[in-house]
Amino acid sequence: MEIVVQKYGGTSVGSIEKIKNVARRLIKAQQGGRGVVAVVSAMAGKTEQLIDLAHEVTDTPDMREYDVLLSTGEQASGALLAMAIKSHGCKARSFLGHQIKILTDEAFSKARIVSIEAEKLLEEMEKNSIAIVAGFQGVDEAGNITTLGRGGSDTTAVALAAVLGAGVCEIYTDVDGVYTADPNICHDARKIKKISYEEMLEMASLGSKVLHARSVEIAKKYCVPIHVRSSFSEEEGTMVAVENEEMEKYVVTSVNYNRNETKLTISNVPDIPGVAGRIFKPIAEANINIDMIIQNVGSDGNADLTFTVAQNDTKKALEILQGVARELKATSVSVDEDIAKVSIVGVGMRSHYGVAAKFFSTLAKEGINIMMISTSEIKISCVIEEKYTELAVRVLHEAFNLSLE
Amino acid sequence: MEIVVQKYGGTSVGSIEKIKNVARRLIKAQQGGRGVVAVVSAMAGKTEQLIDLAHEVTDTPDMREYDVLLSTGEQASGALLAMAIKSHGCKARSFLGHQIKILTDEAFSKARIVSIEAEKLLEEMEKNSIAIVAGFQGVDEAGNITTLGRGGSDTTAVALAAVLGAGVCEIYTDVDGVYTADPNICHDARKIKKISYEEMLEMASLGSKVLHARSVEIAKKYCVPIHVRSSFSEEEGTMVAVENEEMEKYVVTSVNYNRNETKLTISNVPDIPGVAGRIFKPIAEANINIDMIIQNVGSDGNADLTFTVAQNDTKKALEILQGVARELKATSVSVDEDIAKVSIVGVGMRSHYGVAAKFFSTLAKEGINIMMISTSEIKISCVIEEKYTELAVRVLHEAFNLSLE
Repeated sequence: MEIVVQKYGGTSVGSIEKIKNVARRLIKAQQGGRGVVAVVSAMAGKTEQLIDLAHEVTDTPDMREYDVLLSTGEQASGALLAMAIKSHGCKARSFLGHQIKILTDEAFSKARIVSIEAEKLLEEMEKNSIAIVAGFQGVDEAGNITTLGRGGSDTTAVALAAVLGAGVCEIYTDVDGVYTADPNICHDARKIKKISYEEMLEMASLGSKVLHARSVEIAKKYCVPIHVRSSFSEEEGTMVAVENEEMEKYVVTSVNYNRNETKLTISNVPDIPGVAGRIFKPIAEANINIDMIIQNVGSDGNADLTFTVAQNDTKKALEILQGVARELKATSVSVDEDIAKVSIVGVGMRSHYGVAAKFFSTLAKEGINIMMISTSEIKISCVIEEKYTELAVRVLHEAFNLSLE
Repeated sequence: MEIVVQKYGGTSVGSIEKIKNVARRLIKAQQGGRGVVAVVSAMAGKTEQLIDLAHEVTDTPDMREYDVLLSTGEQASGALLAMAIKSHGCKARSFLGHQIKILTDEAFSKARIVSIEAEKLLEEMEKNSIAIVAGFQGVDEAGNITTLGRGGSDTTAVALAAVLGAGVCEIYTDVDGVYTADPNICHDARKIKKISYEEMLEMASLGSKVLHARSVEIAKKYCVPIHVRSSFSEEEGTMVAVENEEMEKYVVTSVNYNRNETKLTISNVPDIPGVAGRIFKPIAEANINIDMIIQNVGSDGNADLTFTVAQNDTKKALEILQGVARELKATSVSVDEDIAKVSIVGVGMRSHYGVAAKFFSTLAKEGINIMMISTSEIKISCVIEEKYTELAVRVLHEAFNLSLE
């Protein structure tokens, strides 16, 4: 049996009307005898509501119970979708994480899937019934409910597609695919037809919210093609798949930006071995991720260290840094929240020269100053003043001819 | 270990503030080393919201999925309550129906509990942790989620108390006990200190909403004392327990009423064997419960049959009756929705004469006409015009001296 896994995000099931629309799409997908598994998110806004309730109880909700609470959102939308399909006289059944044993580790609120027992889903499909799976949730060895973190339903869907050997995992969302840049900023942004796992992974970590990074990792590992598309149209979206010749036409695939980082600088610390460790160890221990780092060594043998963290970690990072600064006798600690990270991504960079030079000169021509730089084999990122974000995205998009088919 | 089971209804957990109040009560109950199990309902209004969502999808929601949907209410309130307890530095853990295998039959939306595996709750209590159980829900042999019907959390609590050998099952609600009559109608109604299971069962089926009838059946079977009390005060409420001498002081225990029934009459049907069957069989097949029945046989050998059904079954019952009337050549079918059933309950009736006579003469004195009568060993019910409901309750309450301590 040919199997397709379809995942519907929160906006796609955001109202009863939209759930009925999804039901019709699933029934259609089943025609011709395909086995259909639907993975659903909570109705749009529901998860935020539940998070607010938890924070009304306490500032630091217990994470085991937090997952019990949050997992109700997907349970409800799955049940409503099954009702909608059955009201058409078709077969459907909803499944929760524990009912098909989506086994995860015990990291509540950010658990990772270990295995899935998909037999019940296969039985369901063999009965010509649409199997609906509550996304985002699993169960640990002890039978506790766990959740997979924001965007976790994507991961549920891709993991199911891998286990079931599905031909494709379709991710339905409120945009109709992955674009060369944010269409709200860059009006001639183009929908990308095919993109490699590697590029999509870079994009997910550079600020693109279309797919959960972990879902792309799993797709890559098990070679599951992901089709990102809109639940409100029939149009083809973007295929995320193994790198192939067709994709290599473009040197750069997309321009991305992220305005949710803060730049912190600690000035005049002694430039001796072990100093960076003394600065970054307490920050790591506070579970704060550091993105970019640069170090400038002055002629006096002292150094300035600059790095970026997520904006909602700023307060905590600053407190730690001020403590470290006192110990190291650093002269000052400064914070800059008015920054943005602008990046280009493309597997074509591996075999093309001059990409970085073009990137820097394009920004220089507009008088945009580059504060920090970070590169990988397939991406270049830099930190600039926040006010230039839109301009930078537009000129880079044009410089690399991304609007052309 | 001495164990207490406490059940908190929807109004008792109706807001985060109220949930925090319940958390404090549970922590207090645990002091002195008692094992505490809390059973929670969904937050007030939540179940209605979910039912509305289901009916927005379809008029006839699939019952398996209906239970998956509805059970999320208790899951959420249980998690929130556990968070609230833990925020005080105390131990707690929430459990769902499937996690302690509250095994039920497969009658979705009105399932009956078959067995419970309570070991995990005992382990939890031995760790000095408060075990919180989502009320109203269970799981069938195949692992499907089931629910126990309206008021089902009472049943969860009493069944757990029975399995765990708890000394008492405390049912916390928005009233502070069981009253001799509705205090909103009868201002000198008195809180009953002790009442027998038999009387409470009659009251539950006569319109009292304090306890779910099934919970009283289980309490009676396993001799679990139920303490009905308010979650907003420390006052003693009403003990529901085995009939004992202390209770026999009163001949009549309470006056009850129910305004949610309709009277239907089919006139001039032939008075021959099998006619009642032909009338009531199709009504039973439509899952409509009939409460009271009377038959008047005229001198012409024809009979009038009158019976009552729940008001929300009126439309369906009327359609069926009109069909039957045509077949039986009955002269007419009439409907009366402006009726009320008024009842008195008391185990003392068994050993006292003249109770019925006093009941009838009390109503007659006020000019209240009795349309139908039904009796059991411990209750007398009659149907009267709805407009006399309050008056009838008050004069009966006075005639049987129910306000006196």
